Amino acid sequence: MNKPTVINIGLCGLGTVGQGVWKHIERSLPELKARFGVKLELYRAAVKDPKKPRSVEIPASKLTTDALAVATDPHVHIVCELIGGTTLARDVTLAALKAGKIVVSANKALLCEHGVEIFAAAKKHGGHFLFEASVAGGIPIIKALREGLIANRFTLIYGILNGTCNYILTRMVKEGAPYAEILADAKRLGYAEADEALDVQGWDAAHKASILAYLAHGVWVKTDQMIVDGISRITQTDLKMAAQLGYCIKLLAVITRDFATNEISVRVHPTLLPKDAVLANVNSVFNAISVTGDVVGTTTYIGRGAGQDATASAVISDIADAITLLTAGKAVVACAPSENQLRGGAEAPKLAPLGHIRSRYYLRMTVKDEPGVLAQIATITAESSVSIATVIQMAAERPDAASLILTTHQSDERAIRHTLTDIAKLDCVLEPPLLLRIGDFQE
Amino acid sequence: MNKPTVINIGLCGLGTVGQGVWKHIERSLPELKARFGVKLELYRAAVKDPKKPRSVEIPASKLTTDALAVATDPHVHIVCELIGGTTLARDVTLAALKAGKIVVSANKALLCEHGVEIFAAAKKHGGHFLFEASVAGGIPIIKALREGLIANRFTLIYGILNGTCNYILTRMVKEGAPYAEILADAKRLGYAEADEALDVQGWDAAHKASILAYLAHGVWVKTDQMIVDGISRITQTDLKMAAQLGYCIKLLAVITRDFATNEISVRVHPTLLPKDAVLANVNSVFNAISVTGDVVGTTTYIGRGAGQDATASAVISDIADAITLLTAGKAVVACAPSENQLRGGAEAPKLAPLGHIRSRYYLRMTVKDEPGVLAQIATITAESSVSIATVIQMAAERPDAASLILTTHQSDERAIRHTLTDIAKLDCVLEPPLLLRIGDFQE
Repeated sequence: MNKPTVINIGLCGLGTVGQGVWKHIERSLPELKARFGVKLELYRAAVKDPKKPRSVEIPASKLTTDALAVATDPHVHIVCELIGGTTLARDVTLAALKAGKIVVSANKALLCEHGVEIFAAAKKHGGHFLFEASVAGGIPIIKALREGLIANRFTLIYGILNGTCNYILTRMVKEGAPYAEILADAKRLGYAEADEALDVQGWDAAHKASILAYLAHGVWVKTDQMIVDGISRITQTDLKMAAQLGYCIKLLAVITRDFATNEISVRVHPTLLPKDAVLANVNSVFNAISVTGDVVGTTTYIGRGAGQDATASAVISDIADAITLLTAGKAVVACAPSENQLRGGAEAPKLAPLGHIRSRYYLRMTVKDEPGVLAQIATITAESSVSIATVIQMAAERPDAASLILTTHQSDERAIRHTLTDIAKLDCVLEPPLLLRIGDFQE
Repeated sequence: MNKPTVINIGLCGLGTVGQGVWKHIERSLPELKARFGVKLELYRAAVKDPKKPRSVEIPASKLTTDALAVATDPHVHIVCELIGGTTLARDVTLAALKAGKIVVSANKALLCEHGVEIFAAAKKHGGHFLFEASVAGGIPIIKALREGLIANRFTLIYGILNGTCNYILTRMVKEGAPYAEILADAKRLGYAEADEALDVQGWDAAHKASILAYLAHGVWVKTDQMIVDGISRITQTDLKMAAQLGYCIKLLAVITRDFATNEISVRVHPTLLPKDAVLANVNSVFNAISVTGDVVGTTTYIGRGAGQDATASAVISDIADAITLLTAGKAVVACAPSENQLRGGAEAPKLAPLGHIRSRYYLRMTVKDEPGVLAQIATITAESSVSIATVIQMAAERPDAASLILTTHQSDERAIRHTLTDIAKLDCVLEPPLLLRIGDFQE
């Protein structure tokens, strides 16, 4: 391949992120040229409606409604897929990769659903797929995992990956208001989507966890192979109890690998995190990721997880890597180890069975305020070999009932689920128990 | 250049870091081969004394006492300069670069003193100089600044870059013991060098700040062009007063750039940091860096700043980048913008004069316990237009004297230095005043 003297960028999708990318690249053109010794051009952008008013001025001649034409245009070297979703975005991505182009994407859902197909297409046709913006916005965590920390085997990665949940939990703590009220306000302010399910049920964080697990361990874990719990049942009682026990509550994605058994686990759940942990003090829409490698120890990364500018920053760093690829002739970046590659070296890891995923637990039950309740519950936990560490009973938020809060010693997901199922069957238990994990991680 | 099928690594220096690099690469050889599709070999190591016992087993045939021979060996592709110092290390580095090789170095002093010469040699002869391990150990901050955050102009970078100082200050807070006592113990435990000056006087942090400033702004600021203050005069009184005011004290390197005036400042000083700032809670030997870019906002990076393994992790990430360079044929990495490159785009920044470096200040004076002292001092501050925010007077650690602690509103380095000089001349002031900066940074 000849080294190009002008590198043309095609944008597919010109929404919030697309406009941010256009704006910041346009501003940085002289610096980027100085830095890479090659001229960069914002060549074309595909949009749904060319007439729609936008925050960036783009000549009409550069706009088109045909995203596939941009993706396959022989003049375009780098295709930014910023459409979102998994239909047109997939077509555009695959078409560009089949044409041997470099695709830059912020699309975590696409990557999770079609990652195998996308990387196979890139490999087959000599294209590249870059996705720094898909996890934790402006934090360069993808690059850190696959390049900066390449000497490491990752025993533990955990992080706050969903800004909406962190925003809601932060405001619940600060204002003492109930979940539903804060959520409604967050929607009004645009911090939560009209359909909040993807965020507050943990699926958005699960998609991002899947990508981090792939980078760290070379295997795709589907969201239905994970434990995924959301934040919608967390109450002021839980936040206050957690505080009293020395914790705060964060929605965490947790990825573990045990190199002795070669088992990994990927899970997303609200977690009691010790108050003095760095991530416990990461609030509002900020994201944070703690990465423990066997060589480097624990490193932590904090920054804005979403928004036009933070995401554009990540997209542009991928574009810069793409320029390096293009100007270096035939190039190879340090990519995640695929299962195939790993067969040459280590074994690909297996998913840990539930019985191997260990934690301490926090359990809140709403029970009838009558004698004998604790004895019944304690009998059930004992039968599952779940050992109780602390018990607190207090008035529940509904009348004639009590809140019973247990914390346990180390147990495992299988045992705690048995316990939960059996407890839920008791007549004296008025609502399904709420289970939270206690995140005293061994870093 | 032909793409090599085996890449040979030569180590110059096999001390703590060198042995760590050897150990971790040896262990990772299968993974690295799977990842890059090329065989890697630990080819040769230059040491002072081949007979010295080491923690890694190396065949005698691979050891030599001739570092320059390793640096120029035609079979060696990547030279790791881990000798330290600026004499033999410089010879080895320049010789390897002149031979067109890739040099990986953890040597911050070498880079600060001879960076211009080193990068010129690399450019002239087609070599590369990589230095991730020179700042903040295992934290991939170099890569973040020059690749991950490439879309950004950096208005503020500040960090805890010296683990020894952070360790001492952390223990002073926890144990309430005086500086000298903790320092002596830190030396005994190996957390501080026998000659502690480089660490506690701030010069080590200044070297690292110089490298970060070069990466972010493309200019070399010499340590004698910076404000550099150490921690040796900090007392329990200061730590307690800071706590009472809502701060903790950290030795920070601070790099600012004002894009309106195009002025930069680089400084290292003990800083009162608000207790709820992320860096305020980074303790012991950990390092942390907060980076504010105009696109991404503030991102923060935390990890171990030194030690065999953390440093080896960084060296190996550079080796991985070197492999990418070698296997990609003629390659260009996104490097820091040089002054020359910048001339094509932006103007190179100038050093801010002292009068433009603004801060709030904390001043502790040991004064005679007699009437009229505060009036004399307040007169002096008023004459320099330094406006006092708070005043606290308390018994000093020596008898018959008082400690007078002022905090000021925003002022500048020129004004505060005038004030300090004039205050020091007063008969009622018994010791040179201690000046600390208050780091309420606009992120």
